[in-house]
Amino acid sequence: MNELQFSDCVRACMSCSLTCANCASACLKEEDLEMMRECIQRCLDCADICQLCARMEQKQSPFMHEMCELCAKACDYCAEECGHHQDDHCQQCAEACRRCAEECRKMAA
Amino acid sequence: MNELQFSDCVRACMSCSLTCANCASACLKEEDLEMMRECIQRCLDCADICQLCARMEQKQSPFMHEMCELCAKACDYCAEECGHHQDDHCQQCAEACRRCAEECRKMAA
Amino acid sequence: MNELQFSDCVRACMSCSLTCANCASACLKEEDLEMMRECIQRCLDCADICQLCARMEQKQSPFMHEMCELCAKACDYCAEECGHHQDDHCQQCAEACRRCAEECRKMAA
Amino acid sequence: MNELQFSDCVRACMSCSLTCANCASACLKEEDLEMMRECIQRCLDCADICQLCARMEQKQSPFMHEMCELCAKACDYCAEECGHHQDDHCQQCAEACRRCAEECRKMAA
Repeated sequence: MNELQFSDCVRACMSCSLTCANCASACLKEEDLEMMRECIQRCLDCADICQLCARMEQKQSPFMHEMCELCAKACDYCAEECGHHQDDHCQQCAEACRRCAEECRKMAA
Repeated sequence: MNELQFSDCVRACMSCSLTCANCASACLKEEDLEMMRECIQRCLDCADICQLCARMEQKQSPFMHEMCELCAKACDYCAEECGHHQDDHCQQCAEACRRCAEECRKMAA
Repeated sequence: MNELQFSDCVRACMSCSLTCANCASACLKEEDLEMMRECIQRCLDCADICQLCARMEQKQSPFMHEMCELCAKACDYCAEECGHHQDDHCQQCAEACRRCAEECRKMAA
Repeated sequence: MNELQFSDCVRACMSCSLTCANCASACLKEEDLEMMRECIQRCLDCADICQLCARMEQKQSPFMHEMCELCAKACDYCAEECGHHQDDHCQQCAEACRRCAEECRKMAA
């Protein structure tokens, strides 16, 4: 009812941040950890960048457009790696990253 | 479709974090800034605590229960102040804080 | 003795982040709050950006150079405003921002 | 000269946060990744908790004492695991965690 409505971009960023944190954490529990190195690193970066991006957009910071541009790149980079893994958490993460990259590019434009 | 489903508590924390950041930012633009001092301080603390709490719950960190306890207190404290102000952003923030405190208390139990 | 040595840039970013957080907090306690609006907003943005920048540099993230560029801009923007105020916390903040901007520009180059 | 002086506890927290982030990142590059699972997880949690703790102490947040208590626990937990590994980054991390835990306990008392 009396709830703050978040923009599509803010929602995509906050979901992506937590989906990436979730993926890194799930990767660290995978049996074949070796093949998850790169995925974990990219997810951790993306989680942090998306988290700050969501906050800066919500606050309408003067740096939000540049932050969105950077966020879109971090999302692309993470989606590229996660997309290669068949685990559910990786597929969900790749999907969240793609959506977030798209929203951030619209916002940055 | 292939989306990570967040728990009620994670959702409440991420919404509350951004609603608090939004409220602090909107308070800083209010004409009568003097009466917003306390509100801004509490919102900033609450935004940071909720943000970390959402992440730790999503990762199922061993510290998530203690973080939820602390988060519930920060939310109560913020809701107490925001609830006194009639501005939409403050009322939305008080509401988000109350919901988040409730979810965090369930999780911490 | 067995301590991790941080680079000049990482040190400048972590100091700047906390100096900005300190300044925003001190501004919120100033008698003449009205003239501190802009300062608070810029300090909060800069605190968050510097915090993430320090982490990404330390991890040698592939996005560290872009993050340093953004950080330098946020520091310039914050220093510009803080430099106008005579309070100790503002002067310290302007100084920390200038140093951080300089280190980030070297790193980004 | 005109620099903000950080308390021992704030300095310990900010150093520990970045030392943990550094350790997690270095662990992810180790040949024997398998034995680093637990270390990475604990370092990531500790990095996030110390980062927030440093900020809350600097701001003299009403939640700083509880945050320091939680931070001391996260540091103990991380030091326990890192202390078992002979790599430089793990030994540095264990040391930073022990110092931070000690400072946080003094502050929380």
